[in-house]
Amino acid sequence: MSRTALPQTPAEARALIRSGAWTGPTSGLAMGYVQANLVIVPKDYAFDFLRFCVRNPKPCPLLEVTEPGSPEPVTAAPGADLRTDLPRYRVFRHGEVIDEPTDISAYWRPDLVAFLLGCSFTFEAALVRAGVPVRHIECGCTVSMYITNRECKPAGPFSGPLVVSMRPVPAGEIARAVQITAQYPLAHGSPVHIGDPAGLGIADINRPDFGDPVEIRPGELPVFWACGVTPQLALARAKPDLAITHYPAHMFITDLPDEAIRAF
Amino acid sequence: MSRTALPQTPAEARALIRSGAWTGPTSGLAMGYVQANLVIVPKDYAFDFLRFCVRNPKPCPLLEVTEPGSPEPVTAAPGADLRTDLPRYRVFRHGEVIDEPTDISAYWRPDLVAFLLGCSFTFEAALVRAGVPVRHIECGCTVSMYITNRECKPAGPFSGPLVVSMRPVPAGEIARAVQITAQYPLAHGSPVHIGDPAGLGIADINRPDFGDPVEIRPGELPVFWACGVTPQLALARAKPDLAITHYPAHMFITDLPDEAIRAF
Repeated sequence: MSRTALPQTPAEARALIRSGAWTGPTSGLAMGYVQANLVIVPKDYAFDFLRFCVRNPKPCPLLEVTEPGSPEPVTAAPGADLRTDLPRYRVFRHGEVIDEPTDISAYWRPDLVAFLLGCSFTFEAALVRAGVPVRHIECGCTVSMYITNRECKPAGPFSGPLVVSMRPVPAGEIARAVQITAQYPLAHGSPVHIGDPAGLGIADINRPDFGDPVEIRPGELPVFWACGVTPQLALARAKPDLAITHYPAHMFITDLPDEAIRAF
Repeated sequence: MSRTALPQTPAEARALIRSGAWTGPTSGLAMGYVQANLVIVPKDYAFDFLRFCVRNPKPCPLLEVTEPGSPEPVTAAPGADLRTDLPRYRVFRHGEVIDEPTDISAYWRPDLVAFLLGCSFTFEAALVRAGVPVRHIECGCTVSMYITNRECKPAGPFSGPLVVSMRPVPAGEIARAVQITAQYPLAHGSPVHIGDPAGLGIADINRPDFGDPVEIRPGELPVFWACGVTPQLALARAKPDLAITHYPAHMFITDLPDEAIRAF
């Protein structure tokens, strides 16, 4: 492999990241393989967080839950180490960010449980393959995200609003976008809402709560998918003594081909 | 409603059961609504059992997990009471059956968590609607079930073999049977194995481990689906101090129409 080539396999990408040579976003690395959101909580919170995910599968699609104390995702990437194999992390104490390190070995405890949740990269790649335009990728910016007026189903201390991401889709392509993304329930699945931002309590579509605004052109409608920021907000509200997540856009790269999580 | 008519709605069926007037199997009650397997364990076991279900979604498709201490399935049947609304239960102490009552109020504890798991009734109804023959329904007997040589992914104390149910399907109907049942991932989904019983370690297809043998006619192949007995065996192996399940074929009737859990 040349020094400038991007790693092609998940194992190569994780090795590059683990070595400290790659600390940036993971989009474009090991294309065609599932990337995942990471949430780590103490075992005392893990049952409730797992119930939160089961009750809210669109924002929190479960790829894997590790054995308490083990940093190895034995199903999604056997041999990988979730303490070192992401480019950057966020560490929370009682809901407040206290560190954004590139390695969390120093924070690891034998009571920690790691959750891998599917992310939108998988369905966006499928949209692109099918020729459905994805504006924020074309623009090289971050997807628009909004806090909605819809509450998740709570579980123990975990609760909060549904957060959605928005992609403008031409009216004639929306049905295909629905059918394509519905094939990936472990990557947020089909849209939760199409058109009508006010129906989600979004006052101004041009002012997202997270990410960048993108242009909605004539003939396009805003299409809303459940977003992985949802569990982050629930985590911030639950305020466990320790929690660790991926840093935004700095994901865990699994060994699962995108097609392995395609439902049909 | 006349005295002899079967209850048509889930609420009517549960009321009849709760009153003690119905203590038999639930097939045929409230047709068109999802029926569920019930597993109840103490909270100390609930996280590991939930992980077991997440890791083995085909035999253990999760419909709902209750709040610890609450017998109300707020999503699947708000207002129902899992202590009284099934016709019969099995109560286990340390893995051994100690009682088969029609009401478990006397066993209820504030640390119990109830799991509702989808069952094959849902996909069998879909097969029948589509004109795919289902032999054991035609014969009025119990579906054939087999303990396979395939191990589930373990989680804490929960482990054990995959148990499958078998239905003979004409060779020309198997593809449709796959496509129809794949639409119901919360009711075991598509088959895990088609033909070749030896590939699952089944020595004699005419001697099921549970249920009745059924005839496999010329031109038919045995088709195997993951079975809800799987978590029962895992439960017996984990031996919690207390566990409660439905009595076989005496299910919980939810308010969910079958179509509500159809994935596509």
